[in-house]
Amino acid sequence: MREVFLENLRRAEQLLSGKGLERLIVFGPANIQFLLGTDAASIAVIGDEPVLITPRLEYLRAVEEKAEGRVVAVAKAGEWSEYEEVVKGDFYDALSVVLKGFDPGKIGVAGASKDTLRKLAKKLGGKPVDISGEFKMLRRRKTDKELALMRRAARVAEQAMQKAVDQLEPGVTEAEVAAAILELMVSRGYTFSFYPIVAFGEHSAHPHAKPSTRKLREGELVKIDLGARVGGYCSDMTRTFVYGKASRRQRHIYEAVLESQEKSMEEVAAGISAEKPYRTAFKSLKERGLAKYFNHGLGHGVGIEIHEPPYLTAGTREKLVAGDVVTVEPGVYMAGYGGVRIEDMVVVKDGGAELLTFFDKFLEI
Amino acid sequence: MREVFLENLRRAEQLLSGKGLERLIVFGPANIQFLLGTDAASIAVIGDEPVLITPRLEYLRAVEEKAEGRVVAVAKAGEWSEYEEVVKGDFYDALSVVLKGFDPGKIGVAGASKDTLRKLAKKLGGKPVDISGEFKMLRRRKTDKELALMRRAARVAEQAMQKAVDQLEPGVTEAEVAAAILELMVSRGYTFSFYPIVAFGEHSAHPHAKPSTRKLREGELVKIDLGARVGGYCSDMTRTFVYGKASRRQRHIYEAVLESQEKSMEEVAAGISAEKPYRTAFKSLKERGLAKYFNHGLGHGVGIEIHEPPYLTAGTREKLVAGDVVTVEPGVYMAGYGGVRIEDMVVVKDGGAELLTFFDKFLEI
Repeated sequence: MREVFLENLRRAEQLLSGKGLERLIVFGPANIQFLLGTDAASIAVIGDEPVLITPRLEYLRAVEEKAEGRVVAVAKAGEWSEYEEVVKGDFYDALSVVLKGFDPGKIGVAGASKDTLRKLAKKLGGKPVDISGEFKMLRRRKTDKELALMRRAARVAEQAMQKAVDQLEPGVTEAEVAAAILELMVSRGYTFSFYPIVAFGEHSAHPHAKPSTRKLREGELVKIDLGARVGGYCSDMTRTFVYGKASRRQRHIYEAVLESQEKSMEEVAAGISAEKPYRTAFKSLKERGLAKYFNHGLGHGVGIEIHEPPYLTAGTREKLVAGDVVTVEPGVYMAGYGGVRIEDMVVVKDGGAELLTFFDKFLEI
Repeated sequence: MREVFLENLRRAEQLLSGKGLERLIVFGPANIQFLLGTDAASIAVIGDEPVLITPRLEYLRAVEEKAEGRVVAVAKAGEWSEYEEVVKGDFYDALSVVLKGFDPGKIGVAGASKDTLRKLAKKLGGKPVDISGEFKMLRRRKTDKELALMRRAARVAEQAMQKAVDQLEPGVTEAEVAAAILELMVSRGYTFSFYPIVAFGEHSAHPHAKPSTRKLREGELVKIDLGARVGGYCSDMTRTFVYGKASRRQRHIYEAVLESQEKSMEEVAAGISAEKPYRTAFKSLKERGLAKYFNHGLGHGVGIEIHEPPYLTAGTREKLVAGDVVTVEPGVYMAGYGGVRIEDMVVVKDGGAELLTFFDKFLEI
């Protein structure tokens, strides 16, 4: 797994030297995980030997998990042991130590809020260069090594979906199915990319339903949205079923959603506007009279984070690039009746997209 | 459960009228959950009939989950169904509609970042009054209704701890034990307040260890930190055991941590500095030569959030108040060897503290 992060680190160093910068201060657990394979650090400084800055209680974990570099802990008071490198003060004090002697104009920053940028400028005695936009593009263009982890995460998601389907029987609760999903992922040493959604009947009308003690009954819609995390990288997939025989209305909605997914998925390719497939899905549902029940975007980027750029949604100005991994997940939700969503994850390529999630699409169980 | 939130809402309304304010804009999922019993809204406005502002996809869930009030969805484009109330634009546009005609000086704000405060002042045409500090105190002073939920969450945590202990046998992995914990909580319709920590042997030296596929061996330390969430409220508890017969060193560390917990717990009471019990625990461990391995604070507040004010730590200026629920959790962590933490949750009262978590403390399993 370490090689994934070392490659990401080399790419970030190239970005840095390409911009004539000497150091990059990285904020945000996902950005740090992307470069160093651990979320134990609060700030990372890269450019030569990476430095991970942590609260004291995360020091040892950072030392063990980091792909490369050294770790500096921060503490306001107390006593520390022989094996810890500690800076007395706060994170900004540690940054001052690590960046001593560097010209602020030669320091890049990624992932900082406006407030943090202001504090940094004060602490460093000058404005560093915000390259969050370029850094975001690094994260968007997935490498083959990153895709290999995401494919593994997709396999675990498929296994969890099968286990969830196996649990379905009259009287089982949404919560019991969610527990089975979590149990499968966690017991094998993986984690989940988000709390799974399991929703029966009219409850499936909530796009982000929370698994409850509601019991399954014959003939009801069953919506299951889940994802696993492998080596820090996420997967994401939704299937909707009917437990028993589908009604005409259920089948009508399901087929409309499936068609809108197929049509919009066909368009996904490097270079197109991220809004275009959304518009296509919307139009497809509109032809069936269902567009007003499609109450969210078509999809989102996936990587270290379960929701990350780009967003396939109305009004976006982003264009898709080769290496983007995005979901395509139209849905139709009717209050008091239920909802249908079908979601797959694809990697964007020149001229098209490659499917990453393979669980069969069938309506009746 | 609804009564818990209605009481919180009434308390917030009293705070508001006590300050001569007419409306309160509330940011932050935990703050909104505290008042309205749902995390589906992105912003809430209270003062008369509460208004919950949501992205469109959370509209129906907010309608169903909210303790009181009406829901307004926000959308940039699209078409919507007959049952949705939608404002076209972003969250700030919705706020402008909801707060039309109000004097900015009569509007309070809680939970906004500095950037958000700046944007709000621009949008409202004047500075609203930041009462985040007072709002935080409302959340700190738990009502009997809130405590009743936290006691239930503590009972679920104790049951999960028992199940975790029952899993321990040579060869079981940390991940398998973590999966059993999650399965118990989730299958019953509760959730977890955080991803459980299960760490064996030298891995227990990480205060925030992540459950891995490491297998348990005879004579090793076993550290388990877990919490359940019931009705939105969290519990938190840690126990450390030795699987088999404890060595003299393991027993020495365990007894030192237990003693420091007992001594610091005795001091917890309304009116004292939140730093004082930390200092006592530190001193107690120092007498055993272990203070330098105590690499975190003594405890934190618990409520809707698993970590919330006050923090029992070096350098804090907070005082404990009656109704604070805090953890008392000293720990000793030695690189390459292992760690011991013992954690309980207590409610602060005048003259003392009442224990909320009751799982037995024993060293050997």
